[in-house]
Amino acid sequence: MNFRSDNTAGASEKVLAALIAANGGVQAAYGADEITARVEKALCEVFERDIAVFLVASGTAANSLALSCVTPPWGAVLCHAESHIAKDECGAPEFFSAGAKIVGLPGIGCKLDPATVAKQLARMPAGSPSDSQPAALSISQASEAGMVYSLGETSALAKVAHSRNLAVHMDGARFANALVTLGCTPAEMSWKAGIDMLSFGATKNGCLAAEAVIFFDKSKAVDMPFRRKRSGHTLSKGRLLAAQMEAYLQAGHWLDLARRANHAALRLEQALLSLPGVRIGWPRQANEVFPILPAAIDERLRAANAAYHPWSPDWLPPKSMPRAGEALFRFVTSFRTSSAEIEALGAAGQPEPIRSTRAKVKVR
Amino acid sequence: MNFRSDNTAGASEKVLAALIAANGGVQAAYGADEITARVEKALCEVFERDIAVFLVASGTAANSLALSCVTPPWGAVLCHAESHIAKDECGAPEFFSAGAKIVGLPGIGCKLDPATVAKQLARMPAGSPSDSQPAALSISQASEAGMVYSLGETSALAKVAHSRNLAVHMDGARFANALVTLGCTPAEMSWKAGIDMLSFGATKNGCLAAEAVIFFDKSKAVDMPFRRKRSGHTLSKGRLLAAQMEAYLQAGHWLDLARRANHAALRLEQALLSLPGVRIGWPRQANEVFPILPAAIDERLRAANAAYHPWSPDWLPPKSMPRAGEALFRFVTSFRTSSAEIEALGAAGQPEPIRSTRAKVKVR
Amino acid sequence: MNFRSDNTAGASEKVLAALIAANGGVQAAYGADEITARVEKALCEVFERDIAVFLVASGTAANSLALSCVTPPWGAVLCHAESHIAKDECGAPEFFSAGAKIVGLPGIGCKLDPATVAKQLARMPAGSPSDSQPAALSISQASEAGMVYSLGETSALAKVAHSRNLAVHMDGARFANALVTLGCTPAEMSWKAGIDMLSFGATKNGCLAAEAVIFFDKSKAVDMPFRRKRSGHTLSKGRLLAAQMEAYLQAGHWLDLARRANHAALRLEQALLSLPGVRIGWPRQANEVFPILPAAIDERLRAANAAYHPWSPDWLPPKSMPRAGEALFRFVTSFRTSSAEIEALGAAGQPEPIRSTRAKVKVR
Amino acid sequence: MNFRSDNTAGASEKVLAALIAANGGVQAAYGADEITARVEKALCEVFERDIAVFLVASGTAANSLALSCVTPPWGAVLCHAESHIAKDECGAPEFFSAGAKIVGLPGIGCKLDPATVAKQLARMPAGSPSDSQPAALSISQASEAGMVYSLGETSALAKVAHSRNLAVHMDGARFANALVTLGCTPAEMSWKAGIDMLSFGATKNGCLAAEAVIFFDKSKAVDMPFRRKRSGHTLSKGRLLAAQMEAYLQAGHWLDLARRANHAALRLEQALLSLPGVRIGWPRQANEVFPILPAAIDERLRAANAAYHPWSPDWLPPKSMPRAGEALFRFVTSFRTSSAEIEALGAAGQPEPIRSTRAKVKVR
Repeated sequence: MNFRSDNTAGASEKVLAALIAANGGVQAAYGADEITARVEKALCEVFERDIAVFLVASGTAANSLALSCVTPPWGAVLCHAESHIAKDECGAPEFFSAGAKIVGLPGIGCKLDPATVAKQLARMPAGSPSDSQPAALSISQASEAGMVYSLGETSALAKVAHSRNLAVHMDGARFANALVTLGCTPAEMSWKAGIDMLSFGATKNGCLAAEAVIFFDKSKAVDMPFRRKRSGHTLSKGRLLAAQMEAYLQAGHWLDLARRANHAALRLEQALLSLPGVRIGWPRQANEVFPILPAAIDERLRAANAAYHPWSPDWLPPKSMPRAGEALFRFVTSFRTSSAEIEALGAAGQPEPIRSTRAKVKVR
Repeated sequence: MNFRSDNTAGASEKVLAALIAANGGVQAAYGADEITARVEKALCEVFERDIAVFLVASGTAANSLALSCVTPPWGAVLCHAESHIAKDECGAPEFFSAGAKIVGLPGIGCKLDPATVAKQLARMPAGSPSDSQPAALSISQASEAGMVYSLGETSALAKVAHSRNLAVHMDGARFANALVTLGCTPAEMSWKAGIDMLSFGATKNGCLAAEAVIFFDKSKAVDMPFRRKRSGHTLSKGRLLAAQMEAYLQAGHWLDLARRANHAALRLEQALLSLPGVRIGWPRQANEVFPILPAAIDERLRAANAAYHPWSPDWLPPKSMPRAGEALFRFVTSFRTSSAEIEALGAAGQPEPIRSTRAKVKVR
Repeated sequence: MNFRSDNTAGASEKVLAALIAANGGVQAAYGADEITARVEKALCEVFERDIAVFLVASGTAANSLALSCVTPPWGAVLCHAESHIAKDECGAPEFFSAGAKIVGLPGIGCKLDPATVAKQLARMPAGSPSDSQPAALSISQASEAGMVYSLGETSALAKVAHSRNLAVHMDGARFANALVTLGCTPAEMSWKAGIDMLSFGATKNGCLAAEAVIFFDKSKAVDMPFRRKRSGHTLSKGRLLAAQMEAYLQAGHWLDLARRANHAALRLEQALLSLPGVRIGWPRQANEVFPILPAAIDERLRAANAAYHPWSPDWLPPKSMPRAGEALFRFVTSFRTSSAEIEALGAAGQPEPIRSTRAKVKVR
Repeated sequence: MNFRSDNTAGASEKVLAALIAANGGVQAAYGADEITARVEKALCEVFERDIAVFLVASGTAANSLALSCVTPPWGAVLCHAESHIAKDECGAPEFFSAGAKIVGLPGIGCKLDPATVAKQLARMPAGSPSDSQPAALSISQASEAGMVYSLGETSALAKVAHSRNLAVHMDGARFANALVTLGCTPAEMSWKAGIDMLSFGATKNGCLAAEAVIFFDKSKAVDMPFRRKRSGHTLSKGRLLAAQMEAYLQAGHWLDLARRANHAALRLEQALLSLPGVRIGWPRQANEVFPILPAAIDERLRAANAAYHPWSPDWLPPKSMPRAGEALFRFVTSFRTSSAEIEALGAAGQPEPIRSTRAKVKVR
């Protein structure tokens, strides 16, 4: 019963099989191999457009490389205060950009809204040499609170950003999970909504390590070959990344995996809500559930070896704040999360009498 | 017949099998998994010492991260002018160190000697604020010319470096190949010879992407967790790197692979020397052969689809320089290089009559 | 009637005379001159302690160099959100530190309090590689709202910072102005209150360009000679900075200048308060006055060519916020501000009848 | 008798007088003052062209800022191995450019020639992500050996550089000294010969601290306001730099000063050559003399308190190398060097009988 993250699983069977299949034979080094070429073509098809693609092994690398291509050292990247680039990457965007400023903004559900962005931009006079110059807007889809920007919300944010010539970046570590929630096309959720650069995450959703930095405007990508190489992210045996990504994209495998993870989250939410006194913090919209648990429930779950993280309630709606004796937690599901695990969790959380009846369920 | 590099092959069967075996189940993220812990222990045993280990996916990352831990932005790293860190990483060491100076020095066979290093150090006054301060010496084992430092040579270099308090780094992209040539222990070729930090390469010798940054003095490693994270090199599913490395080290697999590659180089050298007019540039000491080919031979080999790189004769011994109608080339063998490939190459290079008789050999 | 800043004036007569006197003869270059040596000694006496001193030509350089000596690239500097280092230096601290994070915190009067700092530190777990590591606390004395930290307030902040091993930096662009307000010794307002590093500003208070970076713990200064040189801030004719600073410190000249400026602010405040409907935003404590002006007054003052800046009310006490038809402004006085200028301003702001009677006052 | 450098003197009388004259009154801060505006206009006239001008206080800042505007972090700057940017600025160009590579090339007299530059460029393949990309060529006029590039030599170098789209930078720390030697116009020695960016030095030739970064192609300067501010080189009281520069340029004062310094060098050379066994290393072409002194002469001069630096013979013509018992030295003259000093030096160097007769000359 490990709900700590969607990166505690390995790869999907299909992704693993592709790695095995790609292992033989000779391939050109440093991304000049045939599989990488096929992946680039496949992503152009997925996004219905000619795009620039760069495979890397980590989401931090993807985000930072993408942003560094549009942000000068005196630039500023606007994002949510809780976003991964602002809080969880040990200053990677500052490193890759040679010292740009990451400006964290407020927003319920770890989502930004156009008024907040516009207000911040109004405080940053264009051209004043004393001021870091706004250069990019970065949003996370799904957000760090597991919430999904609608197409209209994304468009509205991009419009504000573009009005000041900011590039718009989407941290899509959970792009697939958001996409199947919206039920739209990848193009609609990205460039058609104003996204200029996308960190297209695959690691959390079924690969071992594979992310694509995608530039919808290829002219923004001219520095990437140098930036990727110089940061050690141009792997010599490029087939490693490409084979994973190829299998991931094939025949909608990535969407199947995301649907599985999201469905597990729905079931998990139901299981949690069946426990006495449990409420939900942010609405579940992708593969993360943020329950507010009474202390007794939390204790019971942990006693049963369930693993999950306590979470900061900072960006909850005021009405949803944990009360005394409660706390907010994060549960994440992946393509691997099993029904048995969820049932076991539900059973473990029940007060004694009920729990004993379900104790027979065996879960690894 | 691809002799372009030892990074055109995939992984060894054992390494691949380990990846498959590690794929199931739940593992903690970001290198806190059990396999990583086992790898750290295995490397302590390999090196007969308590060491600090950090797995990363590329040699460029390994070298740059290691050097950045000991080199301030105003520091200088002394190395051979032809070394990978100086010539082939698009300024990665400068990036990771926030602007240190990479000082390329001369040396036959792309090897440094103590006198050259001492002479350079004498030109860099300690403490003068106008001068970049020598902070590290980096040597490649095997060198970019495929040559191997003897234990005595390494010790002598380290002694000069340590006399000015420089840290000594070994770029061991081909550590295993050099080791089996010397027939010594990993400890003897590294810390016992004065090496402080080692980029322990496994990618070229049988992994898909796995390198270990090793600090023999653990106090030099205190910044590494931050530097690795901040550069995007702390992979979320740490098992990917760890599973490869574990299999690589198990039961001397890595040494078997290196012996195979080195032996292929020996056979390849013999095949090349059997061709009329072929000489060897730098002595073959690991898994690289640098023949000087008459133009006619080169043409015949390329016509037969043999793939290999032309190479700069800069650091050849003066007496070995290519003459008119000749050029220097690099052939690299790997654990995968087959006898058939080598025989086919030998056959392809022979003048017409002989070549026809061997043309039956089938090689992919 | 220019109240835009205390950097619109030139140098004091004494400082200028010192420049003239120092101009002749031969002096060693790059700060090895005799005058610099005397200045270092004088500052040791002023601060009653053996200190490390580095003269530079700008406050931005002083702040950034000081902070870069204690903040690694993955470090964080805590400061007020409105502080000069966070808002007005185009990312200089990020540049000098190779990408550290400047964390802006809230606080009325642009002052921090210990609880706010402690709360922020509690959110930044020590040693977690995902998180920028708190490395320094920087406070501005006087603050960007012209307010002065008491000795107790400074001590309390330093105590919180030191409990997590942060270095404590004081941006003393207006050190002298704050000092004469408190009436304490330089030692009391700095190292005796827990300050580790001080940007000792002299430019605004009577020099043309002269700031001293002071390290009370000399061991923190070992990198400074390299950092200063490498950033182009080691002037070749060191006498330029040193001669100014020597005259500035001599016989309490710097304190006289600050008293003059502060006294002018007192008179200016009185003149502004004599105008109908004028209130004061932040209490005047040094050489800046922040009046809340009715629009009509503002118009009259500008019509009379008075120059001053509109100012953000962000950190006003809630009760002092400008109401409709009002706005907050900043007026700064310097050692050069004349009584005539202040009288003229007061006259210009008066409604018609009164104004006419004072219109005779002639001011440049 | 101090011949250590041209930065051991103060300012010329006219420059000092301008500082005094500019001290009164109110001036806008951060370079928006009237004097700066006049200086920009004056420099446009001096260079017969509309140019972008940025005043800074040090030559290191001028060089690094200029280069950082045209060199990406993965760029390379080609220059002489002995140039100030490569050897004497503690890695400042690397710092300002966020890690570019400074590539030092050989050349007699510390001058580059087109063939050397072309050969180096041929080794740096355009577009290869493994290789730092050549971005700028920087030459020093006069060179670090006191030698002057002819207009034809500069043009030929610029032509090679421009053929690969490198920007061409001139480190003109001694621009005036070279200019009066050539007897051409500032335009001819700079943009008409292919120079794109110039560090126009004034400090060594009569100012206390004043350099102008000049962009002949204004589009290359768009980043400069941010880069200058962010590095702490936008002085708040801009009049300090501007007043010096205005006086420096007025009525050819700068050329008079340079003629004085160069003439002193001529006289100094004569005095040195009058001593037995003295030869000249590099031809004297500006305000530096590089004699090869027999040890006995060196001892006599030092005994008489003459101050000058020993110098590296690295880039001497082979035929001019010091022999046993000799060494190379550098003597620099400035606008302040007096005939008396030179005569005293000549006298001090003479063997006993002669020296005694001149011992009456009194010099400080």
